[in-house]
Amino acid sequence: MARPVLALLTDFGIQDHYVAAMKGVILGICPDAAIVDITHDVPPQDIATGALELDAVIDYFPIGAVFVCVVDPGVGTSRRGIAVAAGDRLFVGPDNGLLSRSWQRDPGARVVEITNHQFTLGTVSRTFEGRDRFAPAAAWLATGIALERLGAAVADPLTLHSPVPQIDLAAASIAGAVVRVDRFGNLVTNIDSPTLAQVAAPYVVRVGAAQIDGIGQTYADVRHGALCALVGSTGHLEIAVSGGSAAAILGVGRQAPVHVRGRSAA
Amino acid sequence: MARPVLALLTDFGIQDHYVAAMKGVILGICPDAAIVDITHDVPPQDIATGALELDAVIDYFPIGAVFVCVVDPGVGTSRRGIAVAAGDRLFVGPDNGLLSRSWQRDPGARVVEITNHQFTLGTVSRTFEGRDRFAPAAAWLATGIALERLGAAVADPLTLHSPVPQIDLAAASIAGAVVRVDRFGNLVTNIDSPTLAQVAAPYVVRVGAAQIDGIGQTYADVRHGALCALVGSTGHLEIAVSGGSAAAILGVGRQAPVHVRGRSAA
Amino acid sequence: MARPVLALLTDFGIQDHYVAAMKGVILGICPDAAIVDITHDVPPQDIATGALELDAVIDYFPIGAVFVCVVDPGVGTSRRGIAVAAGDRLFVGPDNGLLSRSWQRDPGARVVEITNHQFTLGTVSRTFEGRDRFAPAAAWLATGIALERLGAAVADPLTLHSPVPQIDLAAASIAGAVVRVDRFGNLVTNIDSPTLAQVAAPYVVRVGAAQIDGIGQTYADVRHGALCALVGSTGHLEIAVSGGSAAAILGVGRQAPVHVRGRSAA
Repeated sequence: MARPVLALLTDFGIQDHYVAAMKGVILGICPDAAIVDITHDVPPQDIATGALELDAVIDYFPIGAVFVCVVDPGVGTSRRGIAVAAGDRLFVGPDNGLLSRSWQRDPGARVVEITNHQFTLGTVSRTFEGRDRFAPAAAWLATGIALERLGAAVADPLTLHSPVPQIDLAAASIAGAVVRVDRFGNLVTNIDSPTLAQVAAPYVVRVGAAQIDGIGQTYADVRHGALCALVGSTGHLEIAVSGGSAAAILGVGRQAPVHVRGRSAA
Repeated sequence: MARPVLALLTDFGIQDHYVAAMKGVILGICPDAAIVDITHDVPPQDIATGALELDAVIDYFPIGAVFVCVVDPGVGTSRRGIAVAAGDRLFVGPDNGLLSRSWQRDPGARVVEITNHQFTLGTVSRTFEGRDRFAPAAAWLATGIALERLGAAVADPLTLHSPVPQIDLAAASIAGAVVRVDRFGNLVTNIDSPTLAQVAAPYVVRVGAAQIDGIGQTYADVRHGALCALVGSTGHLEIAVSGGSAAAILGVGRQAPVHVRGRSAA
Repeated sequence: MARPVLALLTDFGIQDHYVAAMKGVILGICPDAAIVDITHDVPPQDIATGALELDAVIDYFPIGAVFVCVVDPGVGTSRRGIAVAAGDRLFVGPDNGLLSRSWQRDPGARVVEITNHQFTLGTVSRTFEGRDRFAPAAAWLATGIALERLGAAVADPLTLHSPVPQIDLAAASIAGAVVRVDRFGNLVTNIDSPTLAQVAAPYVVRVGAAQIDGIGQTYADVRHGALCALVGSTGHLEIAVSGGSAAAILGVGRQAPVHVRGRSAA
C-alpha cells in the first residue's frame, strides 16, 4: 500500500496548539502518514469558505487520501460526525455541510456516522472533537480499516447549497458573485468555465465600479496595475490586478456581485 | 523502531527561514523523521506561553516523540542547553524554564546538558542555537542515541512556577486568571477540573465586567452571541462566546482575574 | 537512496489552498517525500526577498534536496520555467532571478528549461504553474530522474544582482543596507563577515538616527532594551535590540542605509 496521505483543513489558526494535537494523535495511530495542511485560516466557523477551499484541492491529492476537515460551530452538540468515501478518497468531519462537495461530486458516495468508540480516543472532549473523534477516525481509515466499521450509514447528510450564478441566455448575461479573495487580492467568483461557455465572447465583466473588456489568459496580459479578468487555476472567473490587489483597488470583497455580458452562444 | 516523531515549538514565526533551517538539519541527521509544528507563534521571548502550549500537547504525541522547543531570550549566553527524558518522551531546548513541565510531570525525569560537539553542528552560532545545537541534538535522540551521550546530568534545571489559583474553601471561591487567549477569542484560565471540584455547583464565574451562571459543556450550550463558561479541551475553565470572541466582547486578555464561586463541597 | 526532501518557498501565503495543491501533486508523484516549508510569506512578487530567504537555508538541507520556489509575477507568460542542479542540490522555479544564487554559488551548475510534458501535469494552468509545472517537475527530480530529461539546457538564465556593500578602504568604511527585517524586528544587512573583515575593529555602526559602538556576539550582550550590532546566524551584520524590536525602535526597515566605520585593516 502506498504511504497514507492525510490532509487537514480547519479554522483553528496556527497560533494555538490545536492542529498539532490532531497531528500527534494521527501519528500515534498511523505512523507512516504524510500529513499536509490545506489551510487552518478558514475564517472562524465559516463553513462555506472551508467547503470551497477543500473542493479546490481534492483532485490534486493522490487516490486514497484522507481529508480531515473541522469547521465546527456545533462541536459537542448532537450534530453528527461523519466519514465519507467518495471519488476514491475519504473525508472526515462534522455533518454540517463542510464535506458536502464530496458526495455532490460522486453519486456513489458512502457516508457513515462516526460512533464506534474503538476508533476514537477514549474520552471525547465536547469542545474538541477534531482531536478526539475526527483525527483518530481519519487515521484509522488511513491505516486501511473499512469505512463501515466507523458506524452506521447516514442517508441524509447535511448538504450545503452554494449560491449558483444566474444565467439569462436571452440577454447573454451571467450574474454571479465573488466567493473568495485570495492572498494576492484576486477576486475569485462562482462563475466557472462551463457557465461562461453558455454565452459567447466578446465578454464584458462588471464588478464594483469597474468594467473590464474581455477575459484574458494570464495576470500579466495587461500592463502593470491594470485590471484584468481571467479564468483562474480552479476553473473559475477571477478579477485581478497585474502586480496588485483587485480587492484593495476596487474596494470589494466576498459576496460582491459580478456580471458578465457576452453575445448569444447560439 | 517506529518512525521518529519530532515536534517543534518556537517563537520564530513563519515569515522567516529559521524554522526551515532547523528542519533541514533534522532531516540531514534523521531522514525518516515525521516533523510536526506545534506552533511558531509564541509571542517573542514569552517563555510562559511556550511552556503552556507545550504542556497542552505532550500527551497526544506518541511515546518516544522528541519535542524541540526554542523560546530563548538568553541565546548565546552561558545559560545551558538541555535535553530531558520524561514520561517516555524527550525534550530539547534552553534551560530557562520552557521545558519545566516535563520534569514537573515526571519525578523520574532525567536532565542532561547538551555539550557533546559530536551531536551539534560543527560551529554553533551564538544567535541561533535552535539550528546549530537543539535541532541536531534532538535529531540524534530521535535516531536512538542515549540521552546521556549528549552531556553530563543537570541536577538543578530552571523550573518555571506558573501562578496557581487561590482556593478559599470557607468562602467556596477560587481566584485564578486568564493564561491564554486562543484564535477564537476563548479565554483559557489556569483553573483546572480538580481545582473546580474543590467547590461544588452551582457555580458563578466572574471575569471583567461579566458574570456567568453555571459551567456548561459545549460552546453551543447558550444562544448565539451569549457568554458561557465551560471546561475546555485542555481540562481548564474557559470563558467563551457562542459564535464570537469572548476576548473582544469582554475586552479582557491574558492575566485578567477570573473568580469562581460555588457552594462548599463538604 | 535516502528519503527525498522537497523544500517549498513561495509568496502564496497560507490562507489559501495553493501550497496544499502543490503538496498533493508532489505526494502523488513521490509518495516518500519529506516536504518542508521554507516560507510562504515572501511579500507578494518580491523576488529579491525570496532569493535571500532561499540562500539562507540551502546549506542546512541534505545533499540531494529539491527546492521548489515560486515567486512569479510573470506566471503564464513566455518567461521560462527552469530546473537547476547546483552544489549537489536541485532547484525548480521560474526563470526570473529567484534561483540565481544557486548558480552564483556553483560555477558547475547545470540549468535546463522545463518543457517535457511527461513531467508536468497534463494541462498547465497559465495562472498556477507552481501546481502544474514546478511541483511535478520537482517531484520527478526527487524520484531520481535526470535533470536533462526535463528539457534543453539554458545558457543564459536570468541572474539577479543584489546590491553589494561599498567598501572604502582609505576611509575604513563600509556602506551597506538593511535587506531583511525578521520577526523579532532584527535588521539584517547585506554586509557579511568577509566584508566586515576588510576593515578592523573597533567598529562604529550607524543606522537611522542610531550609532552603535562595537560589534558584539549575542543579543544578550547588552542590557535589556539596548541596541546592539552583531554578526547573525546567516553570517551578516545585524542590528538588534535586546528583548525588543530594532525595526520598531529605530523606525527603519528594508533598504535603510547602514554604515560601518573601523580602522584600516592594513
